[in-house]
Order: sequence, then structure tokens, then C-alpha cells
Amino acid sequence: MSGDPTHMTPDEFRQNGYRMVDWVADYLDHVGEMPVLSSVEPGAIAAKLPASAPEEPEPFDDLLRDLDEVVMPGITHWQSPNWFAYFPANSSPPSVLAELASAGLGVQGMLWSTSPAATEIETRVLDWLVDLMGLPESWKSTGPGGGVIQMSASDATHTALVVARHQNRHRGPAEDMVVYVSNQAHSSIEKGCTVAGIGHCRKIDVDSEFAMDVDALRTAVEADRAAGLIPISVVSAIGTTGTTACDPIDAVADVVEEYGMWHHVDAAYAGTAMICEEFRPLQEGVARADSYTFNPHKWMMVNFDCNVLWVADRAPLIDTLSILPPYLKNEASEAGAVIDYRDWHVPLGRRFRALKLWWVIRSYGASGIRSMVRRHVELADDLAARIEDDRRFELFAPHPFGLVCFTRVDGHDATRSLGDAINQSGRAAVTVSEIDGVAFIRVSIGQTTTTSAHVDALWTLIDDLS
Amino acid sequence: MSGDPTHMTPDEFRQNGYRMVDWVADYLDHVGEMPVLSSVEPGAIAAKLPASAPEEPEPFDDLLRDLDEVVMPGITHWQSPNWFAYFPANSSPPSVLAELASAGLGVQGMLWSTSPAATEIETRVLDWLVDLMGLPESWKSTGPGGGVIQMSASDATHTALVVARHQNRHRGPAEDMVVYVSNQAHSSIEKGCTVAGIGHCRKIDVDSEFAMDVDALRTAVEADRAAGLIPISVVSAIGTTGTTACDPIDAVADVVEEYGMWHHVDAAYAGTAMICEEFRPLQEGVARADSYTFNPHKWMMVNFDCNVLWVADRAPLIDTLSILPPYLKNEASEAGAVIDYRDWHVPLGRRFRALKLWWVIRSYGASGIRSMVRRHVELADDLAARIEDDRRFELFAPHPFGLVCFTRVDGHDATRSLGDAINQSGRAAVTVSEIDGVAFIRVSIGQTTTTSAHVDALWTLIDDLS
Repeated sequence: MSGDPTHMTPDEFRQNGYRMVDWVADYLDHVGEMPVLSSVEPGAIAAKLPASAPEEPEPFDDLLRDLDEVVMPGITHWQSPNWFAYFPANSSPPSVLAELASAGLGVQGMLWSTSPAATEIETRVLDWLVDLMGLPESWKSTGPGGGVIQMSASDATHTALVVARHQNRHRGPAEDMVVYVSNQAHSSIEKGCTVAGIGHCRKIDVDSEFAMDVDALRTAVEADRAAGLIPISVVSAIGTTGTTACDPIDAVADVVEEYGMWHHVDAAYAGTAMICEEFRPLQEGVARADSYTFNPHKWMMVNFDCNVLWVADRAPLIDTLSILPPYLKNEASEAGAVIDYRDWHVPLGRRFRALKLWWVIRSYGASGIRSMVRRHVELADDLAARIEDDRRFELFAPHPFGLVCFTRVDGHDATRSLGDAINQSGRAAVTVSEIDGVAFIRVSIGQTTTTSAHVDALWTLIDDLS
Repeated sequence: MSGDPTHMTPDEFRQNGYRMVDWVADYLDHVGEMPVLSSVEPGAIAAKLPASAPEEPEPFDDLLRDLDEVVMPGITHWQSPNWFAYFPANSSPPSVLAELASAGLGVQGMLWSTSPAATEIETRVLDWLVDLMGLPESWKSTGPGGGVIQMSASDATHTALVVARHQNRHRGPAEDMVVYVSNQAHSSIEKGCTVAGIGHCRKIDVDSEFAMDVDALRTAVEADRAAGLIPISVVSAIGTTGTTACDPIDAVADVVEEYGMWHHVDAAYAGTAMICEEFRPLQEGVARADSYTFNPHKWMMVNFDCNVLWVADRAPLIDTLSILPPYLKNEASEAGAVIDYRDWHVPLGRRFRALKLWWVIRSYGASGIRSMVRRHVELADDLAARIEDDRRFELFAPHPFGLVCFTRVDGHDATRSLGDAINQSGRAAVTVSEIDGVAFIRVSIGQTTTTSAHVDALWTLIDDLS
């Protein structure tokens, strides 16, 4: 770096940029060979950093060196083809390049006018997704509904809960309001209730396949009403985090409508699968939902963060979240001719995240995304078949998508030990979870570059360690 | 793109990556020559996009072509050296490259264990900033406090308000709680109250320099208590959005402590200036605050998004936001040996944003950031002096940092017309705002590449158009 200390010239940026691209290309080329989980001890990375900031500029060479020496030992490789933990946070080269373009442009799309392209591409691409995922036409920007990119499903769900609470504010205090979820719902819903100040997050029993028991839901709603509480929302899951169970959306909708609640659907992971028609029966009834969220950053090859929230009616959302100070006033907004997405979520500022979603859909085409989903689901089916055929193991739950849950037949501890041994091997990462005191191993197949060879290797590893 | 439709090979990524780097380098080289504001009509960008997603993959060439042809006409150039609108969202080459590295790694740092480096670098770098900005030692991770990167100041402030509400939940319903701000406070605080379900956001009068009138604050708190309401928090501003006024933090703290409230300090823009000792008297008393937020993505050359929230005591924050489902359990967290930042904000997932903050601080050094701040403030002082010396104009407010607010002496409409004319010229962007029915022009000097030549050109433009 030379000259003015506040500059890296465009030419220096160019040279350092090539090196950075090479570094990322090499990483993507070799990530499959690296131990999947970081094995550093707590504090080991921090210990490599000086106690105070440098007073003088350091050259880019030092940053690149420390990327290898300091950062890499502390990286858990979500982009490894041997990543089977949690849900995927998959990515793709065009998404990474779009992130570079977006960072280079450095726009802040809080208002339409602060970069019309950021808003209009977002609107159009989310309309595309409505068609691609078989969602109701009325959720498009041309209807009463609309979609918005948020950071995470936690943010989207929290937003939906805030709108539900706000709409019911004249019926009583938030402390008396109740939100219903299955006992398998993601923790973000309970957290969203806490953050929104909603008094009760009622966990409803599930059936043998871990889907919400709608009779139990109705009973709970009636009991709460009888107790003077205010039922405001049900959050259904299409693909729970534990086992990808799907709540019966249509039957839940009957209860929701009967009691005038807000029906939010959390399809954070499984939403992507809806791009394939054969999965849509699992979201039957979705046209009756009030809001729906899914994460292109989980399974659609768009790097984190990129969450989508749709609402069936944008009016209550904007009514809850719009505040217009004088410094944000502008002609386009006042004419009502444009969308200002700042009124669709908690934060004001927003990155140009639509760019990567647009580039991924164009780079792979709908057909490419469909084949990726089908390939992952097929790999999951194959793995599940092997597990089923092996008397040492038992499937723990149905596997409608890319997640396979299984146990060792010799019990809880054996299952935990197997999961830990897989993770300690460095050759694959899985998640050990638990329902009602029973441990099970979650194998989530969804990383962009995962092929049958990687699943075969995982199976060999499981076999060796059992 | 060839072969498997779900892949762009590392080599193709490398070639396309070089082109993307060239594109960004060219952009940074030429952004100063482009009309600053986009002049497209509503709907013009969307009209260039097909009505539905492509079924088949499109080549990267087409994406790059459309970046120029479709996207660029709809971009408002926040990175232009002629950007004087809103506050800056400044950036720098090392920050853009860190964003590329972060996207390439594609880690999701919700837990320490899901990439220890992401957590530990964040913790260490935020500790560095405590020293750099003259904040209390006890806010470091080694004390009872701590810092966390959030998306935006809106998110950080909302989080602080939720904690304040949660801590007071046994005193009465949220609908009866009151948060106090000056009538110049950012809209995110009123929005944060709405989102958090806090019943009242009381706007306190300001003095002649637009800083909170502490006597008026005390009177309001006492009146609310007498009315049976529950005062829970004061949000002070160091650098209001309208005019960068600074509330008297120390005097506010007296009232806050007397009534047992939570004192949140919003230094979203001006926090960066605190890296220079001479500005610290403007945050005198900050050691008595409960939380403090600032945006490295505004004025510290870190591209959006990167917000920092510090709390003086991390216990109530974590107590409010921690929910631990079985699939997130892990040894390191259970041993209490690590920080899991998911418990420090609303969302669960998080990008590796600390990387760009770390790279920017190292690339420029504390001295480089200090000189950038001083250069911008000096440019603002120069501009203010010219305005003061010109009988056509009048300064509207003090200019402690990089923002200069002025009016035309011939009135409201003339000021508005001048602002609009500047923006329509394409040669600079400013913001026209209003306080108590008086319009004024905000000239915010803070883009990384803005030099005296750009401010001179702006002054010539103002002169020509007046």
C-alpha cells in the first residue's frame, strides 16, 4: 500500500483482488480435503492477535498471511462437501461473485430512491420465486401481498409476530397474548415471542411423525381463551429443524381462521424444495397462510445471509413498521409509486442482497436448482435405505427432504458416541440432537458440491465407527 | 459454465472472479465521474427483467452485461466522492476484499463452535475499539461488559430497548413503559419502541443547539411516574441525524440513575470520530451508559453492514436473548468457556463480518483512520467557513463533525430549490431536511475518497445555483 494512507488505489485493489480470488478459488478447490470441524481450543485464535490495534498501516500481504495462519485453523467448513451438520448454508461461485459486486457498489438500499435497482430487482426476483415455488399469485407485488429479503428466518418470524401482536394491541396487553407452535418448532419462534414481549409461546404436542397435532392445537386455543388469554398466531413448520417434519398446514389453517389468528409458515430449510412440484403436497393449504419465510441461504446456493419473507397482505406489515422522518422524505415515496423496503423490516439500512439471489437463479436456471434439490434428496433416500437395511441402526423419523435422522439400536449413549466419533474424525460433520431424551444423529445432505462419493464415504465412516 | 449445471468449477470461478475484480476496480476508478443519483423512473429497472425466472442456466457473460445495462442505471452512488447525502456509508478496498473472503468461506458463526475464528476475532477487535475510542475498559470482554457486531444501529437500539423492557417486565405491562429521546433522535428509536411493544416513546425538547434539554427530561419522567407509567430507558444521541447534535450524556446519566433506567447511547455516525481524542469531550459521561452503538459502516471505511453494540453488563442481554434448543448444544458452550454471539442479538445465524472490520483497522492503522476523520472534519470546517462568509447563506446548526447544515437566507422554498437543484445536477448529492418547518441542506462529508477538490466543486455548484 502506498501513497495516501486512506487509499488502496484501484490498481492495487485490482492486484490484491486477483490474489483474493485465487485464494477463494484454491479454498473451494481444496475445502473437501480439510478436516470439517475446527479443532482449536477456546482462546487459541484470540491468543494469536495482538492486545491492541496497530497504530500504523499493515500491508495486504500480512492480511493474506494471517488469513491462512490465524483464521483458517479456526474455521468450521460449512462449504465442505462433507458437511452434513445442522442444515446446509450452501453457496455457489456466482453467489460469491455477486457478493463481491454488491460490496464494491456499496449501496445502501433503505429507500427505493437510494438505489432503485436494488429494490426493483428484489421485487421482481421474489415474484419469480412465487411462481417457481408454487406459492399464491396474490403474494406477488402485483397483488395485495409481497416479498422482502431479510437477514435470517429469525428476523422474518420475529417480524411476523410483531405484526400479529400489533394488530391485536387493542384486545389486551402483549403479556396475555399466545402464539402456538409444535414442540418441534425452531427456537427462533420462542425467542421471537420473548423479543416481541408476547407473554406465551405454547408448545403443542406432535404426532408420531413429529408434526403438529391439530386437535391438541384446538384444545389449547380453547383453554387459553377460556382463561382470558388472547390467541394471536400459529407458526407452522414445513420441515422442522429436528427432523424436517411438516405440520398439516391446511388443517392448522382451519383453526387459525376459526379463531382469527395470524398464520405464519416457517419453511426456512424446506422452502427451497418447493421449486420441485413433487414436494408441494407437503405445503398443501399454504395459500391460506398470512406469511411465509424461507432461506435461499440454506439450500438454494445463495451464500448467507439471504432470507425471504412473504406476506399475503402487505398493509398490516407496513402499517406496523413505517415511520417517516423528514430526512427520509422523497418524491418517489410520497407519490406511492415505489416500494421502500425499510418499512418491511426492523432495520433501516439494507445491502443489495437481491443481486446474489438473481445471479444464482440465472446461473443455474430453475432446472439447475431443481436438479440440485433432487440430487440431494436422492442421496438422502439412498443413505436412509442403507440405514434401514442395517440392523445396527434405525431410522428415527421420516425423511421427506435431504435430512436423514437415525439412531444406533444399542441406545442413547451409543448414538451419541457415534456422532461424536464422526465429528472427531474430521472427515465429516453431523449433528447429534435429542427428542424426549432420545439421542439421534442428523445427516443433512445439501451442500452444493456434495455427491454420492461423499455420502458413500460418510457411510463407510459410520460403518467403521460402529 | 460447463459440465454439471450445479457447478462453476474453481477455475471458471477464478476467471470470472478476475473479471469481477476488474469490474469493481473500474467502478471505483470512475464512480467520481458518474451522476451521483440514479434518475430512472419508478418501474424502469423492473421493466428490463423478464416476467419469470429462466428455466435454463445463463452464462456469466450475460450477468456481467446486465450489471452494466440493467443494474447501473438504477444505482445511486454512495461510494462517489461527490456523495454528501444522508450520512456516508463509506467503504474501502480492504473491506471489499474481506467481504469477498468472507463470502468465499461461507461460514455461519451462530456459535463459537461453528467457526471459532469468527467469534474470537470479533471479540478481540471490539476490545481494540474500546481502547481506540476511549470507551470504558469494563466494556471489554475481559470485564462484565462486551461488544457484538449487529446489522444496523436500528437492530442494536431495538435490542437494547428489548433488554430494558424485559428487565422491567415485573413492574407492569410494556404498554405502560416509557422510553425518552430528544425530538431530534433517529426514527429507529421510535420504531424500536413500536417493534418492542413499548407503549410510549416520549420526545423531549432540545436546546438551541438541538441537544436534549435535561430539565425537560426530568420533568417528563416525573410526570409519567405521577401518571402511573413506567420510565425504563433514555436513548441519548452523540450526533443526531438531523444536525449531529450531542446530548449531554453526563447530565442525562444523572436522571437515568436517579430513576433506575437503562441508558442507551446512539453514536451511529459520530462514534467513529471518538478514535480522535479531541472529540471525546462530546461523549463525556459515556462510562455511565448501559449500552452504546456505532456503525463502522458509516464512517470507518467498513462497507455496510457492520454495526457494533457494547453493553456495560452482558448478563441481562444474554439473560433476555438466550434460548438453547438441543440441536445447538455443544461442549464448548456448556463449559462456559466461549462466547456464543447468537445470544447477543435477535437473529441466530451470522456472517463473518468481523473480518472486514479487522482488515480495515489493520490496513489503515489507527493513525490512518484518525487522519481520515480529521481530513473530513477539516473539509467540513472549511465549507462552513465559506458558508458563514457568504451573505446568501446561513449555518443552521453547529458542525462538530463532518456534517454542515445550512439554509438560504431567502427562505424555506429557496433552500429546498437549491437542494433539489444540486441533486438534479448529478454532480453531487445532498439531503434536504426540516426541523420545525424550516428546511435546511445537509452536506455530509465522509466518503472515503472525498478530497478538498470535491468540496470545492460542491461549493462552486452551490454558488452557481444560488
